[in-house]
Amino acid sequence: MKSYEVRFQPDGLRMTVPSGTPLSDAMKTLGMRIQLPCGGTGKCGKCAVEIHPNPPEPGPFDLKHLTEPELAHSMRLACQTRVDRPMSVLVSPGLRVLGGKILVDGVDRVFDLDTPVRKIYVELPAPTLEDQAADLSRVVRGLKFDGGPRPEFDVNLLRELPTALRSSDFKVTVVTIGDRISGIEPGDTTGRRYGIAFDIGTTTVVGTILNLADGAEPAHASRLNAQVVYGEDAISRIKHAIEHPDGLRDLTSAIRGVVNEIIAEACALAGIELNDLYEAVFVGNTTMSHLFLGLNPYGLSRIPFVPVTSAAVALCAADAGIGINPRGVLYVLPNIAGFVGSDTVGVMLACSFLEPGPPRLAVDVGTNGELALRKDGVMTVCSTAAGPALEGAALTCGMRAASGAIEHVSFSDSAVECDVIGGVPAVGICGSGIIDLLAELLDAGFVDRLGRLLTPGELAGSAPEFLLDRIATIEGQPAFVVSRGEGAPGKARDVVLTQRDIRQIQLAKGAISAGIDLILKEMSLAPDDLDEILLAGAFGNYIRKRSARRIGLLPAVPENRIRFVGNAASTGAKMALLSSAVREDADRIRHETKHIELAALPEFMNAFMEHMLFP
Amino acid sequence: MKSYEVRFQPDGLRMTVPSGTPLSDAMKTLGMRIQLPCGGTGKCGKCAVEIHPNPPEPGPFDLKHLTEPELAHSMRLACQTRVDRPMSVLVSPGLRVLGGKILVDGVDRVFDLDTPVRKIYVELPAPTLEDQAADLSRVVRGLKFDGGPRPEFDVNLLRELPTALRSSDFKVTVVTIGDRISGIEPGDTTGRRYGIAFDIGTTTVVGTILNLADGAEPAHASRLNAQVVYGEDAISRIKHAIEHPDGLRDLTSAIRGVVNEIIAEACALAGIELNDLYEAVFVGNTTMSHLFLGLNPYGLSRIPFVPVTSAAVALCAADAGIGINPRGVLYVLPNIAGFVGSDTVGVMLACSFLEPGPPRLAVDVGTNGELALRKDGVMTVCSTAAGPALEGAALTCGMRAASGAIEHVSFSDSAVECDVIGGVPAVGICGSGIIDLLAELLDAGFVDRLGRLLTPGELAGSAPEFLLDRIATIEGQPAFVVSRGEGAPGKARDVVLTQRDIRQIQLAKGAISAGIDLILKEMSLAPDDLDEILLAGAFGNYIRKRSARRIGLLPAVPENRIRFVGNAASTGAKMALLSSAVREDADRIRHETKHIELAALPEFMNAFMEHMLFP
Repeated sequence: MKSYEVRFQPDGLRMTVPSGTPLSDAMKTLGMRIQLPCGGTGKCGKCAVEIHPNPPEPGPFDLKHLTEPELAHSMRLACQTRVDRPMSVLVSPGLRVLGGKILVDGVDRVFDLDTPVRKIYVELPAPTLEDQAADLSRVVRGLKFDGGPRPEFDVNLLRELPTALRSSDFKVTVVTIGDRISGIEPGDTTGRRYGIAFDIGTTTVVGTILNLADGAEPAHASRLNAQVVYGEDAISRIKHAIEHPDGLRDLTSAIRGVVNEIIAEACALAGIELNDLYEAVFVGNTTMSHLFLGLNPYGLSRIPFVPVTSAAVALCAADAGIGINPRGVLYVLPNIAGFVGSDTVGVMLACSFLEPGPPRLAVDVGTNGELALRKDGVMTVCSTAAGPALEGAALTCGMRAASGAIEHVSFSDSAVECDVIGGVPAVGICGSGIIDLLAELLDAGFVDRLGRLLTPGELAGSAPEFLLDRIATIEGQPAFVVSRGEGAPGKARDVVLTQRDIRQIQLAKGAISAGIDLILKEMSLAPDDLDEILLAGAFGNYIRKRSARRIGLLPAVPENRIRFVGNAASTGAKMALLSSAVREDADRIRHETKHIELAALPEFMNAFMEHMLFP
Repeated sequence: MKSYEVRFQPDGLRMTVPSGTPLSDAMKTLGMRIQLPCGGTGKCGKCAVEIHPNPPEPGPFDLKHLTEPELAHSMRLACQTRVDRPMSVLVSPGLRVLGGKILVDGVDRVFDLDTPVRKIYVELPAPTLEDQAADLSRVVRGLKFDGGPRPEFDVNLLRELPTALRSSDFKVTVVTIGDRISGIEPGDTTGRRYGIAFDIGTTTVVGTILNLADGAEPAHASRLNAQVVYGEDAISRIKHAIEHPDGLRDLTSAIRGVVNEIIAEACALAGIELNDLYEAVFVGNTTMSHLFLGLNPYGLSRIPFVPVTSAAVALCAADAGIGINPRGVLYVLPNIAGFVGSDTVGVMLACSFLEPGPPRLAVDVGTNGELALRKDGVMTVCSTAAGPALEGAALTCGMRAASGAIEHVSFSDSAVECDVIGGVPAVGICGSGIIDLLAELLDAGFVDRLGRLLTPGELAGSAPEFLLDRIATIEGQPAFVVSRGEGAPGKARDVVLTQRDIRQIQLAKGAISAGIDLILKEMSLAPDDLDEILLAGAFGNYIRKRSARRIGLLPAVPENRIRFVGNAASTGAKMALLSSAVREDADRIRHETKHIELAALPEFMNAFMEHMLFP
């Protein structure tokens, strides 16, 4: 009987199973989270995964539970898929809709599809001398808002109302957003009701179109944040905003321009009109939210780091020049503090921080690390300035997780094995590779607890030759050569990790693990009390749990308590787009969460120094 | 003992009284409405009137009950003023404030001063590392909105918030309009809180600034409606709006320009800043409201005369380019139908149509006449196309009530006596003069029931010579010369009323009195069942009740049941500016009032023909 290897992403777990094994069995064997309330009979539809390449033909249960776009995106039910070739399976922590319920994959959360955007098609009687009701009254009457509060409306809507009614023989679709009539469209447009969820990162901006009728994701698009020309990081952008007369306007225009490009591209991909998008929900760090909204970020740039507002902000799309339906609504989720933004609120939403349960910690690692802890219904957050090292920046051969980046490193008995994104010669190393490499160097005794890279002399006799060979001196510093540039000149180069690089990583991981230490202490918890550590962000998706623990980035908890939740900030934005209740949850999170300013804690510097050491 | 003549405006009543008579006694003797719940002892302060010229020094009760601006505007208590010289007394049907209550003079209505515009001065603590609340949260916390719904805010406000707080050392005045924070002003600005009430007429636009703290009227200003260049009447302006590509924009810009000029002038007069005006409330006929709001008036121009909306419309001042505080609110009162506008709603508010009481009819005469009837809590309205004749337009020597206009006419035993506005030689005759003249001509037998001006031959022997002399032939038509142009050429001319003029007046009064007839019948009332007929509008203020009844403009009810209520539409706008409850009343009036389309009634043409005859 044949066997095939199945590789699961984003965890990177692999398993070789006999042909014909249900995929769900392999996942269970590996201890992966998988929802099988129906016992793997195909009845519940909750175990959908993405299968690459060439997913099997959909079976009857796939067809029953998955939408057209989901099937087209290679989604299948894991319990119904039998391994019959090598497979790559993406267990995407995302949203799926089933019978009007939204499932957040990988997170114990089910919520109702409950968008504030509604459409109602009405055929109204034309006015007569006996029925002189005003155009708007006629529409409201047709909507039968009996008893309830009368809907509000925009005076601009009234400007178009007479034409909309008379051009369609009084057959119109009324668009309401919340209590507000936001559009009167000629004819029946009820089939077109979309929104878009944005995650505005300092570096990357991602927008995902969702069908508000069924939660399907017909398209997404992403762009680099064009504000980068005014500075790589948030602080230098704030400086630009404050110091140049038109600085704030520059930054606001830049990000709004990017958002508009993404909207246009995603709409083109999905084959829908810009006007079919009625809401856009945004998450981002507090600086990005401020700059997107055109709010003065001055207070964020200096102690005590005060935002203009922490509340959710809703505004009219046309007023902000955002190219969805002009009377659509832009909704920026609330933030918690100057350095704990709506992206963290998104993570907390996606990680069900408002649901009861044992203590859990969410870690979102980026240039700024944000930590969110829940214990007995009490929520605490803090931010910690990790710096860009763990994202691969500011290191000698560091790079983002793109083609040519070494994403995983392991030392075998005779070789340094590297996984390179895209299977091309290595040109650099990204965060997950750096963490792997450092874990291996610690295990091999090449780097000591203080972070010093030992010399070949110190290591001689205790280390294999093939590793000793890789110690070099680069620009006067000791360095370890991860990968040799053996290709044609200019095509590949030596990828190295220098002593200075290791110091950078120590600073970064020191900041994060000190943060984790202090937030746990603040809530009187030991690491072992944590039921789960949830790793959010693209970065989290690809790091090896073992390596992260080895370098002391994460506390020493069993690996099965560490869980990847993907781009949870973006998931939170999508959830908010689909549900008014989730927006209320976001407000609750904002109000009920305690923010700890680490820099204000007397024990911070001590903890930071201590956590720069390796375990 | 000496006696002096006192003349009361706007009724035009005169009385000669012994020196030392309290003014209130004269008013009671003449049967004028005057509120004296304290029995004329000066204790209630409800009998204030305006005294010209040179009002007496204010006494202790004047000082107690009247505000500075009221005293400066020559207001005194009638019960405390003794006649000691010839006096002209203006009994202004307007608003006064007393101990937080608003009195509507001449109308049985007292309501609370309850503007949605509030100001709160707060001294906030500056942020610290221990208190990192966002700027907005800091403000909201300072406002102590405990328990209540959190206030909304405008994203534009957030743009200015950091600077406002930091430029004033966190001592700011928070402006809220309804549930919305509309401004954060550095320092303590609680003493500056104003609004402006507008009556947008087809011909004239009037704006009155009110102090929202005490209801005082520090200034008002008026202008001709600049839309007149696009047409004299509403219909020709609608035509312009529909038929020209930029027609609607022309008309909207024109009226908004006028409104802005009035705001600027009134603010200069009152010595306040434009930014100190936080709300502007508007009434006007439905066409004027549509054009002001930029709404397509197409539906108003043809059967079945449907407005775009009848609901009250609130919008942001900056969005409409109106020069009050940019985050101030414009509030256009609701209308009832295509030809019964918010001005009529204003009249109904000022005439307490929602209060219980015996049947009453309000009549607002203009180019369009609007009638509002209340019986047993049921409200009915209709409009009737009077045409411009009763406003003095479209007649051979007709003119508006301006300097040189004959405003009153009476035939004595030997002369035709004319009151000319401004005491200058007559150059024309205005509505009140025309009604007087026609009443006198009917009494003298010069005009018959059918409206025919008899010839000198027919009248010979039965009429005095000095009247017969005045019958002339003008452009081939019989005419009556009211006033001879005996001055220098070009300075004055003959003022005449021609046979064709009489026909025009018959059409106008026929329309109005047919309307009154039909609306009464619709509600199963006879004229005598009416407790009061309330005459609204500038026109109503100056006509003689007797003359109006004589020509059949008003039904034959005792004169003491006819009451002038001044510019009640404007009074209604002021009431709404000062009180949220009044705005709710306006919505109730809009919803509960039945509109009768006279043209749709089968008996309309018959009634119209019949009422063109004179009684």
